Amino acid sequence: MAVLLKGAAVTAALNEQLKVRVQKLESQGITPCLAILRVGERGDDIAYERGAVKRCDGIGILVKKYVLDIDAGQDELMKTIEIINRDPAIHGCLMFRPLPKHYNEEEARNALAPSKDIDGITNTSLAGVFGGTNSGFPPCTAAAAMEILAHYGIELKGKNAVVIGRSLVIGKPVAMMLIKENATVTICHTRTVDMPAVCQRADIIVAAAGRAKMVDMTYLNENQVVIDVGINVDESGKLCGDVDFEMAEPIVSAITPVPGGVGTVTTSVLAKHLVEAAERTVR
Amino acid sequence: MAVLLKGAAVTAALNEQLKVRVQKLESQGITPCLAILRVGERGDDIAYERGAVKRCDGIGILVKKYVLDIDAGQDELMKTIEIINRDPAIHGCLMFRPLPKHYNEEEARNALAPSKDIDGITNTSLAGVFGGTNSGFPPCTAAAAMEILAHYGIELKGKNAVVIGRSLVIGKPVAMMLIKENATVTICHTRTVDMPAVCQRADIIVAAAGRAKMVDMTYLNENQVVIDVGINVDESGKLCGDVDFEMAEPIVSAITPVPGGVGTVTTSVLAKHLVEAAERTVR
Repeated sequence: MAVLLKGAAVTAALNEQLKVRVQKLESQGITPCLAILRVGERGDDIAYERGAVKRCDGIGILVKKYVLDIDAGQDELMKTIEIINRDPAIHGCLMFRPLPKHYNEEEARNALAPSKDIDGITNTSLAGVFGGTNSGFPPCTAAAAMEILAHYGIELKGKNAVVIGRSLVIGKPVAMMLIKENATVTICHTRTVDMPAVCQRADIIVAAAGRAKMVDMTYLNENQVVIDVGINVDESGKLCGDVDFEMAEPIVSAITPVPGGVGTVTTSVLAKHLVEAAERTVR
Repeated sequence: MAVLLKGAAVTAALNEQLKVRVQKLESQGITPCLAILRVGERGDDIAYERGAVKRCDGIGILVKKYVLDIDAGQDELMKTIEIINRDPAIHGCLMFRPLPKHYNEEEARNALAPSKDIDGITNTSLAGVFGGTNSGFPPCTAAAAMEILAHYGIELKGKNAVVIGRSLVIGKPVAMMLIKENATVTICHTRTVDMPAVCQRADIIVAAAGRAKMVDMTYLNENQVVIDVGINVDESGKLCGDVDFEMAEPIVSAITPVPGGVGTVTTSVLAKHLVEAAERTVR
């Protein structure tokens, strides 16, 4: 029977901490404000946006939405980013990606002011994550995985961590953050040979492959902590992670559920980055 | 008896290829030109500079040196970088680092135009290496390790590679480049527990720890390819790598010597990046 690393407890602790920090900012005359920039009406984006707005409301963060028609065009998008950059009342921006494919995403993501890049999309933030410095912010989902490990007091120093997935949104940043915490990190991906054997040697597994239930008992042992970043839909239409939870839970030492794990924490991390960005303006 | 992965053969092949590319540029009216920016008179820098100038001469690349007094100051340094950035005849810049510690290195490295950043020091280059895109250039030494693997036709796809060292100059970039080539990569460092056991499982070891002869027989087996990026001086004053060559050579499948391995290739990679930067100006 594994310890359940539920996101709710992490979120609750973060929210309490953030409310205090927002109060302090208010006392300095600053109301932290998040800009949400969305192009089009993708269901995933809208669902996440709803969660982010609710989270920000609860903490005392203002939200300004900028929603562009799917065919608004690159110029309109760039102008909107410029408006967000120039508005001193806005402290950070969540820009939904991927953009529709007729947009130049590379140009758009690097147009955002690094100081407002609270979801780690600019080159400045990415270089900061890569280098282990605090220039910019790491991507929120990667940071959420680390928040959970920190909240539950899971030792990382000298541990063998295996990250499944090499995306720039999760796999690679979480690997760099684990290295910064002195874990020995192995990055696996679709071309890895005998991934179960690689994972068997892990103390900590971060699954971010984007493949429903791919991590089964052959990957697992009783000493492992498993962080499941996957959000997939299984054959019966139910939400599930990259880990086969039913199979894993009786085996491993600790595991995040899906839903109710990493996904739950992501909007709190977004709020945390936003508050941090606002605090940086008064330092 | 290991196959010796000598740098000289890699350099010879690169140089021939580069001479042809330089000729083509000349026919388009472009003489590739490298700026070398050095602050102070550090022996290591001067030795490397001598090698780089010689390499460039042999290939037909012009070199312009900008040498500042160790106490020239940040303003003077920034002005010099600006001159290099604005000069259309200069295609790339090698800025020696670390800068003396009374300089703001972060500011200086990011002041360089990304298009001229042939040694991977700007955030744009670092984000490019991290993301596996070709924005900017990777650090030359990391790229030199990859050149050797490519030249000797060493298969990387699906192989287990262990990188010893997590620096932003070698360890992390080489890890990202190995991942891009579909290797499964483990990054070790000073806090890694039982590094010999981790390395025993490697098909490829890239040693970039900066500790003389730390990789001994306990790390090695007969199927391994060992790339030694270390340049150290042993107790008798002789140049040596991070690998105990005398001990390793009879064991492993292939190994780079020190001297005569990765270090030999670095200036050729610098020249390659410079030629590439010049070519990008005419595309």
